[in-house]
Amino acid sequence: MALDDKTLDALKNDLLTRYVSAAQQDGAAPAETPDRAAERLGEIRSPDIGEILEALIEDDGALEAAVATLALLENDRAANVLGYLPGDHQLAIVGALDDAQALKLLEEMGSDERADLFNLLGDDRREALLRRMARKEREDLKRLASYEEGCAGAIMTSDYVAIASGMTVSQALMRVRQTAPDAETVYQLYVLAADGELIGTMSLRQLMVAPPGAVVDDIMIRDVIQATVDELQEEVARSVARYDLIALPVTDGDNRMVGIVTHDDAMDVAEFEATEDIHKGMSIGQLEEGVSRVPLWTLYRKRVLWLVLLVFANLFSGAGIAYFEDTIAAQVALVFFLPLLIGSGGNAGAQAATLMVRGMATGDVGVKDWGKMLGRELLVAGSLGLTMALAVAPIGIMRGGNAVALIVAASMITIVLFGSLLGMCLPFVLERFKLDPATASAPLVTTVIDATGVVIYFSIATTVLAGAGAGG
Amino acid sequence: MALDDKTLDALKNDLLTRYVSAAQQDGAAPAETPDRAAERLGEIRSPDIGEILEALIEDDGALEAAVATLALLENDRAANVLGYLPGDHQLAIVGALDDAQALKLLEEMGSDERADLFNLLGDDRREALLRRMARKEREDLKRLASYEEGCAGAIMTSDYVAIASGMTVSQALMRVRQTAPDAETVYQLYVLAADGELIGTMSLRQLMVAPPGAVVDDIMIRDVIQATVDELQEEVARSVARYDLIALPVTDGDNRMVGIVTHDDAMDVAEFEATEDIHKGMSIGQLEEGVSRVPLWTLYRKRVLWLVLLVFANLFSGAGIAYFEDTIAAQVALVFFLPLLIGSGGNAGAQAATLMVRGMATGDVGVKDWGKMLGRELLVAGSLGLTMALAVAPIGIMRGGNAVALIVAASMITIVLFGSLLGMCLPFVLERFKLDPATASAPLVTTVIDATGVVIYFSIATTVLAGAGAGG
Repeated sequence: MALDDKTLDALKNDLLTRYVSAAQQDGAAPAETPDRAAERLGEIRSPDIGEILEALIEDDGALEAAVATLALLENDRAANVLGYLPGDHQLAIVGALDDAQALKLLEEMGSDERADLFNLLGDDRREALLRRMARKEREDLKRLASYEEGCAGAIMTSDYVAIASGMTVSQALMRVRQTAPDAETVYQLYVLAADGELIGTMSLRQLMVAPPGAVVDDIMIRDVIQATVDELQEEVARSVARYDLIALPVTDGDNRMVGIVTHDDAMDVAEFEATEDIHKGMSIGQLEEGVSRVPLWTLYRKRVLWLVLLVFANLFSGAGIAYFEDTIAAQVALVFFLPLLIGSGGNAGAQAATLMVRGMATGDVGVKDWGKMLGRELLVAGSLGLTMALAVAPIGIMRGGNAVALIVAASMITIVLFGSLLGMCLPFVLERFKLDPATASAPLVTTVIDATGVVIYFSIATTVLAGAGAGG
Repeated sequence: MALDDKTLDALKNDLLTRYVSAAQQDGAAPAETPDRAAERLGEIRSPDIGEILEALIEDDGALEAAVATLALLENDRAANVLGYLPGDHQLAIVGALDDAQALKLLEEMGSDERADLFNLLGDDRREALLRRMARKEREDLKRLASYEEGCAGAIMTSDYVAIASGMTVSQALMRVRQTAPDAETVYQLYVLAADGELIGTMSLRQLMVAPPGAVVDDIMIRDVIQATVDELQEEVARSVARYDLIALPVTDGDNRMVGIVTHDDAMDVAEFEATEDIHKGMSIGQLEEGVSRVPLWTLYRKRVLWLVLLVFANLFSGAGIAYFEDTIAAQVALVFFLPLLIGSGGNAGAQAATLMVRGMATGDVGVKDWGKMLGRELLVAGSLGLTMALAVAPIGIMRGGNAVALIVAASMITIVLFGSLLGMCLPFVLERFKLDPATASAPLVTTVIDATGVVIYFSIATTVLAGAGAGG
C-alpha cells in the first residue's frame, strides 16, 4: 500500500525541523541522532522518500534538509531516490555537493537517469565530473547523454545483461547472478555476437528450465522485437505494451545492442504521451513537467499561441454575422438561438475529432479505416442532430413561431452533422499530410464550426424567411 | 520489430483464400497443407496472429477461417492468441467449438482472460463447461469471474508463484522451475503462511543471489505493496507505475492472497483509463471497446446525453442575448465580436480545466494544491487575457471606433480571466463533492462560459455606451 499523504507530510516536517534548525545552529547536532532517522527512512520506499524530498525543496525551500536526508541513506539507495526527483531538484542537490560526493551518487544511478541529469549540468561541472570517471564509464555516459529527447536512445539504459554467443546455460546463469545488483532487469537476457551484434534473446524463465549444458544459441529466440536508437519513444512504449515485454532492446544502425527500455520506463512514457495528447486536445503545447511545477512563463507560452490564432479565426464568425445583418434585423429572435446552435455543433464536432485522434493514438483506428469511420459517423451524427433538433424545436415555436422552429431545427441537424463530419475527417486529413492528427483540437474544431455554423444558420433563415415572406 | 500492416494483410488474405474456399468445397483439402501454414504462423507472434484473426472475423466475416487458423496452432499458443481478441470475437470462436474443444482452449488461457471470456458466455454453455472442469479449477474460475469490472479482482490472475513460509531458497527455486510454464510471472514471488495470508515478497533476482540454505522468511520483504480485490483498477495501475513493479499482489479482506496484477495488464489499464479521461474531456461516456468497434447505438448513447443537456444550458446564452436586445439594437457592430469573445473565453477555460483534470489523474495536483493553482492561474490567465485583448483591440477600432475597442478589450480580459478561473476551479469543486473531476469537460466549461460571457460582454457594453452617451 502506498503511504498516505499525511504520513509522508509528518515525516517531512520532522526532517525539516531537525535539519533546518540544525543548519541554523551552524552545525550543531540534530535533535534526533542521524542513525535513528536513517532507520525510519529505511522503512520507506524510494519513490516515497523522493516525494518527501520534493516537498522539502519545493514547498519549504529547504534544500539543505533534502541534502542531509539523502546523506542518511546508503549510497545506492540515495542514488535511486535522486532518480525519482524532478530534474531541477536533482540539479540543485548535485549543485550542493562537491565533485567527489556528486560522483559517488552519479556512479550508482541508473545509466539512463544519470545521462538525463548530466545533460542538465553546466559545462564546467560536466567536465570536472567526466575527468574523474573511468574511461569506460565516461564513454557510456557521453553516448547516452547524446541522444535526442523523445527517442529510444534517450530513455534506454545500458545496464542490461548481455550473454556472449556460445555460452552454456549454466555460464549464462552465473553471469545473471554476477550482474544482478547492477542491471535494471535480469529477467530478459540478450545474446550478443563478438562484435556486439544482437543475435537473440531469452527470458530468465527459459534459461532456468533449460538443461545446464545447453548452449544459449540453441535456446534463444532469434527474431527479436527491438527498436533503433532513433525510434520515437511512443513507438517503443507501444511495442512494450503490445508484446507484453519486460524490456525492449535498442540497437544502433548496425544492429549492435546499445541498451534496453524497461517496462516501467515504457509505462512512464505512455503516461507522458497520454498527458501530451490530452493537452494537445485543448491546443496546449507540450509541457516537460507537471502543471503544478512548470514555470508560469512556459505555461503562458504553451497556451497563448493557439488562443491568439483562434481569436483571428473567430473573426470569420463575426464576418458571417455582419454579412447577414439584414436577416438578423428582420428577425431579432434568431440571435437568441445562435450560441446554442454553434455551441452544439462545436460540441459534437469536438467529440468526433477526439474519438478519432485517440483511436489513432492507440492504434485502434488507421488511415485505411477512413471510409468505415465516415459511414459510422454519418449515422451517429445524423441521429445526434435529429435528437437535438427535436429538443430545440419546441423552444423555437415558443420564441418565434413555426417558421423559427423550422429554421432552428433544420440548422441544428445541418450544423451537428457538418460539425461532426468535419471533426471526424480533420485528423485523417492532418495524418495524410504527415501532420499530427492531435492538432485537430477541440478549440480548433469548435472555432471552425462556429464560423461555418453562423453561415449555415443564417443561410437557412434567409431562405425560409424569404419563402415565408413570398408565401405571406 | 512489429510486423507491418502489409505483411499481416497478405498472410490474412492467404488464410482467407485457403480456408474459405476449403469450406466452400465442403471439406476438400485446403490449397496449402496445414503443416506448411502452421509453420508460417509459427514465425509470427501471438498479438500479431490475433490481429490477423480479428481482421478475418471483422472485415471478412470469415469466422470459419479464423477457427481453422486457431486449430493450426499448438493448444497453449491458440489459447494465448485467443486472449488477444476482442470479447465478442472470442465468444464467436468459442461458439463455433464443441464443449471438449472449448474446454481445451479455456484450460490453457490465463486465468484472468478465461474469467473475462466466461462472463460473456450464456448460462447454458457456462454450466456445460463448468461441469467438465476439475473442482479446483472450477472454483478458481467462478471466483475470478465474480469480481466487479473496474476493480483489482477483475483484472488479476491467479497464476502466480506462491512460496510456503519456511521453505529454503533452494526449495523456492525448485518451485519456480516447476511453475515456470504456467505462472504469468515467475519474477516476483509471494510468501504465504499456511492459511494463505500474504506475509512477504521477494524478487527472483533476490532469490538467485541468496545462499541456497537460507529460509525465505529471512530474505523476503515484509512490507508488501498490495491491493485489495475491490480497489479501483486505476489505483492498481498507479501503484505499479509509481513503484516500478513487475506485479502487484491482490488480497481479500483477510489479507489472504488471491492473485496478482502484472505490469503488462497494468499498462493496458493505464491506457484504457487515459482513453476514458480523454473521452470524458469531451463529455463522451465510457466506451468498453475502441471507437472503431463499439456498436453505433452505444456510441450514440454515450455522446447524446451531454449534448442534449448542453442544448438546454445554452439557452441561458440566448436568454442573455434577449435581455440585452436594446444594447444590441443600438450598436449592431457588437454582435460581430460575440462569437470571438465567448469562444476565446471557452478555449482558455477548457485549457485550464483540462490541465487540472489531467494533473489530478496523474497525481501531480492534489486537492490541497487548490490555492497554489489558483494563484498560478490568476497570473497566467491574466496575461493570456491581456495578450488576446491587445490582439482584438485594433479590430475593434476598425469596426466600431474607440468605444467599441474599449468594450471588446475589456470584455476579452474579463471573460478570459473569468473563464480560466472557472475552468480551473470546477475540477476541484467536483472532487470536493466526491464527483469525478473529469466531468469538467470542455463542452460543459465552454457552455457555461458562453452564457456568462454574453452577460459580461453586454454589461460592459451597456455601461460604456451609457457613459459615452452621457459624455457625448
